[in-house]
Amino acid sequence: MKLTIEDIKAFAKAAFSNSRGSHDWEHTRRVYALCMHIGEVEGGEMEVLKIAAYLHDVGRSAQDESNGTICHAQKGAEMADALLDGLAVTPEQKTNILHCIRSHRFRGNQQPETLEAKILFDADKLDSIGAIGIARAFQFAGEVGAKFHNPSVRPEETRPYTEEDTGYREFKLKLSKIKDRMLTAEGRRMARDRHAFMEQYFERFLQEYEGKR
Amino acid sequence: MKLTIEDIKAFAKAAFSNSRGSHDWEHTRRVYALCMHIGEVEGGEMEVLKIAAYLHDVGRSAQDESNGTICHAQKGAEMADALLDGLAVTPEQKTNILHCIRSHRFRGNQQPETLEAKILFDADKLDSIGAIGIARAFQFAGEVGAKFHNPSVRPEETRPYTEEDTGYREFKLKLSKIKDRMLTAEGRRMARDRHAFMEQYFERFLQEYEGKR
Repeated sequence: MKLTIEDIKAFAKAAFSNSRGSHDWEHTRRVYALCMHIGEVEGGEMEVLKIAAYLHDVGRSAQDESNGTICHAQKGAEMADALLDGLAVTPEQKTNILHCIRSHRFRGNQQPETLEAKILFDADKLDSIGAIGIARAFQFAGEVGAKFHNPSVRPEETRPYTEEDTGYREFKLKLSKIKDRMLTAEGRRMARDRHAFMEQYFERFLQEYEGKR
Repeated sequence: MKLTIEDIKAFAKAAFSNSRGSHDWEHTRRVYALCMHIGEVEGGEMEVLKIAAYLHDVGRSAQDESNGTICHAQKGAEMADALLDGLAVTPEQKTNILHCIRSHRFRGNQQPETLEAKILFDADKLDSIGAIGIARAFQFAGEVGAKFHNPSVRPEETRPYTEEDTGYREFKLKLSKIKDRMLTAEGRRMARDRHAFMEQYFERFLQEYEGKR
């Protein structure tokens, strides 16, 4: 008996049972939804996108538990490899899905080459920005015990994963650069729209912080 | 030798040495800035406002350590009482400052009666909404280990201070009601503006969450 896409979904969901609020199964669900949207606009192979989206972060807990020495994209592809033999996909589809997973990481060694890999890459980055990105940045700051804001120090001079890792730091050093890394036209359009909202948000944030608005 | 406003500021700052990111000395600084702005527009007595703003939350750690059985507004007024005897304020000013502190709480027993007390009340509530309010809500969610979002349950059916205490819950059950409680014209104007931004933010948040934007 062959596995179904629902089995893949259940497997992926189980891989996040110990994860925190800012990077979890819900992230995977949002990336899946974004892949479906971008895939419809850009014309990707939806079956490949569905499976790759569900499985793209299943190696995350291995990376976390190894304190970053294991790469979650590489590990995720290894975990998916065996699983995909039980699924009704062609050898070409399997190769593509594993490539999608292996190349989705922002700082990975492997660049996305297929359309589906580019779509997954874009969807994964889009979920870091916009209103969702703002919320994730502040929730993460709460999880690591960061200050709320740190206006007396330039963000460039602060350290990640400490009490200095504020939402504004995340925006200035990381999130504001994501729009320039997108690989598909629809991903780029959405990233610019989400970026413009973050700019508007943080402009207001700084004004409110000074009691000016 | 009499105390100065800088001494009051230092005393207040020291009272927050153990507090978390979402409710701390920076909150007091923002409330101070908002009091200065609203006071200029509404015409409050600035000296009273300055002292009341710095001292309004000094009873917070006593409330937290007592698991809420001590009221921080009442406790803060008691702490301020002795301190104010060392400051060059008139008996009328002292009475007003203590009234400001005692009546600033959202669910307090005492209603703000003087202009300065109404301004402090409004400034304190304004700091819970707008871009700042959104950031505080998500940072707090991170601190209490909440989920990122909980779309399968109506916010009314969830519990505070648990993993269900999401940023969206905070908005729907609390932050969205604050604009109707303001006591000064300028406070009301600012609250409506901040409220409109929160509505815009969460509308986008929900669209992005579904991959639609």
